Amino acid sequence: MEEALIKEIVKRVMDRVDYNMTIPIEASARHVHLSQNHMEKLFGKEYKMSKKKDLSQPGQFQYKERVTLIGPKGVIKGVAILGPAREKTQVEISKTDARILGIDPPIRESGKLKDSDSLFIMAGKVVIEAKESVIIAKRHIHMTPRDAEKFAITDKQLVKIRVKSERPIVFEDVLVRVSSRYKLSMHIDFDEANAADYKEGIFGEIILQSISMD
Amino acid sequence: MEEALIKEIVKRVMDRVDYNMTIPIEASARHVHLSQNHMEKLFGKEYKMSKKKDLSQPGQFQYKERVTLIGPKGVIKGVAILGPAREKTQVEISKTDARILGIDPPIRESGKLKDSDSLFIMAGKVVIEAKESVIIAKRHIHMTPRDAEKFAITDKQLVKIRVKSERPIVFEDVLVRVSSRYKLSMHIDFDEANAADYKEGIFGEIILQSISMD
Repeated sequence: MEEALIKEIVKRVMDRVDYNMTIPIEASARHVHLSQNHMEKLFGKEYKMSKKKDLSQPGQFQYKERVTLIGPKGVIKGVAILGPAREKTQVEISKTDARILGIDPPIRESGKLKDSDSLFIMAGKVVIEAKESVIIAKRHIHMTPRDAEKFAITDKQLVKIRVKSERPIVFEDVLVRVSSRYKLSMHIDFDEANAADYKEGIFGEIILQSISMD
Repeated sequence: MEEALIKEIVKRVMDRVDYNMTIPIEASARHVHLSQNHMEKLFGKEYKMSKKKDLSQPGQFQYKERVTLIGPKGVIKGVAILGPAREKTQVEISKTDARILGIDPPIRESGKLKDSDSLFIMAGKVVIEAKESVIIAKRHIHMTPRDAEKFAITDKQLVKIRVKSERPIVFEDVLVRVSSRYKLSMHIDFDEANAADYKEGIFGEIILQSISMD
């Protein structure tokens, strides 16, 4: 009898799983968002930056120009600059990068830079110090209010995302951010991508935390 | 009524969870196991290798000597050599390392080297080619038959391991290997360690796949 009940409940739970509850995943390489002031210092006031390509999030793009990150233990060249300019310079790197550079930045949401780490940024022969600018980006999902409604998820909710691959992983406590300015996409960094054997085009599957019995 | 039943079943499932079902985790840095022949070629027939330290698995140790890995795109210096010598040289690196070196080795269990990748290995002024030697180690758990009995797990079973940290992750399809020569430990590589915000001393928690409703 108990067995039959469990089966019935499992069936009901499974019935609630929408097999279209998949989310495109993008692996973000290390990059820099520069403030207008830092951009002018690094490239010159008169210099006109060139756009290389648009990114998946509407209005976001990558410049053709690149910078070098300089830490106490190492240097990383050819780091992408994303636009448009932000109020404060923000450097997003992986733990692997942090080890190369010799720093230990916190895992943070974008924009939360208080007490984050510092680095020097170089372009050409100019070096600036970007104080409290460096974070390891906390994995997150961008979605529109319409996606959120479809998934029955609200802004700032934490979800689990399963990645099916040769190295299957469930990312827990993934922060959902809802805005009409967004496009549906989960962002992970390269350490997370490598750990999950991520390849371009791989989707994540939402696991509703409320029905998990883990 | 249904709600009460679900609660009862969840409670019963939770009662079955043994809170001592934790497993120590070790992050393995890139390393090389050399064949006797390759060791003699790299260091000379007369040379006596020095032991640096014992490793967690009984009988395994690290030499003081180190080698350089040379791939088509890059070089990694100071790579540890583990002993004792093996029948066939095996190089274990991360996906991050593979990208630096410019190769794309398969994710494999130790010892399964057929059609794996190749690299050059250098010590001093000697360079050898280690054909079909390079893998990305598949994450796994070593345990004794006694541990296996305690966990009610059998050799070659796949389990899920939850790592609780600032970046909580569940590693799925983790291979369990049981032998009286082993000591209880889960081995992950540095990409996996970074993705899970692993720090020395962190434990993993076994999730029994049979009771998961994910």
